Amino acid sequence: MSDATLLAVEETQVVSTIFSDTDDQGRQAFKDAMANLGSAVNIVTTLSEESATGFTATAVCSVTDSPPSLLVCLNHSASVFAAFADAEHLCVNTLAADQEALSGIFGGKLAQQDRFAAVEWDTFITGSPLLSASAVAFDCKIQSRVTVGTHDIMICEIVGIKRQQLASNLVWFNRRYHHLR
Amino acid sequence: MSDATLLAVEETQVVSTIFSDTDDQGRQAFKDAMANLGSAVNIVTTLSEESATGFTATAVCSVTDSPPSLLVCLNHSASVFAAFADAEHLCVNTLAADQEALSGIFGGKLAQQDRFAAVEWDTFITGSPLLSASAVAFDCKIQSRVTVGTHDIMICEIVGIKRQQLASNLVWFNRRYHHLR
Repeated sequence: MSDATLLAVEETQVVSTIFSDTDDQGRQAFKDAMANLGSAVNIVTTLSEESATGFTATAVCSVTDSPPSLLVCLNHSASVFAAFADAEHLCVNTLAADQEALSGIFGGKLAQQDRFAAVEWDTFITGSPLLSASAVAFDCKIQSRVTVGTHDIMICEIVGIKRQQLASNLVWFNRRYHHLR
Repeated sequence: MSDATLLAVEETQVVSTIFSDTDDQGRQAFKDAMANLGSAVNIVTTLSEESATGFTATAVCSVTDSPPSLLVCLNHSASVFAAFADAEHLCVNTLAADQEALSGIFGGKLAQQDRFAAVEWDTFITGSPLLSASAVAFDCKIQSRVTVGTHDIMICEIVGIKRQQLASNLVWFNRRYHHLR
């Protein structure tokens, strides 16, 4: 280990939090801690009554390979919650390194129609909007929902996948984007 | 867009899979697709009857901030499953960029005792082993379990956090490690 590395380690400080309640200080500590857990950035979409809805999500997680399944967490207070609460299917579109702008568009305040106008979309099996240029798109049937506090966990069976053979990834870590290739 | 970039895009190939069953071909397609979804690497630990158990996990996901919670997915066929099925608490230790060796140790075939001998451990609130040098450690009470196919989703309330102010991250993407700083 070089002296420079050792110095860097010594300069690192540990922050400890004990959760006794759910006040604002606790919520901030949770957010600060989650900033240290890097996640791929996804746009999760659905289609209901001819109307497309989508949002940017990092809380997406592989579950089982048989049947192929994943889960998506969604806050009850999100503007898109009602659309997904009624939905039977969704598509998880994992963003490629050069799709940072899309992450902002689907994580912002734009009307749904304007979000989808930003790029071209396709559909595969379920009819949920599929971003052909994503690193990988998981077309899913929503199988069940589990409520945990303020959030629903949507457990989804993957019925189709489109993936790039040479994929890159957009990752959110330490409150900024990183580009994996 | 330069000619070189355009060429790279044209060379990228999309692979499509439709899941009609859960045969080996389907499982391989699932794994290939999940390789395109980058994830932070964590060591999840617990302590039962004085005995420490831990495994390497990428299927970890933030759920809510109030109460602060996260989830961990675990395969029923994993060697550590019995220990976690009986556990009341666990700790998610998110690895820093320089902890690739630990990922291998806790993802391999070593006896539990030998895994934990590789580095120094601490405890915080629940008694689950906490890796002080991790990017962030989430000390949790296991609140509930949801079975999905071959896996259990362990839903956990975070009761304490230790995090580095200047954290790095070890991320698994495209079947290799990436180092975020």
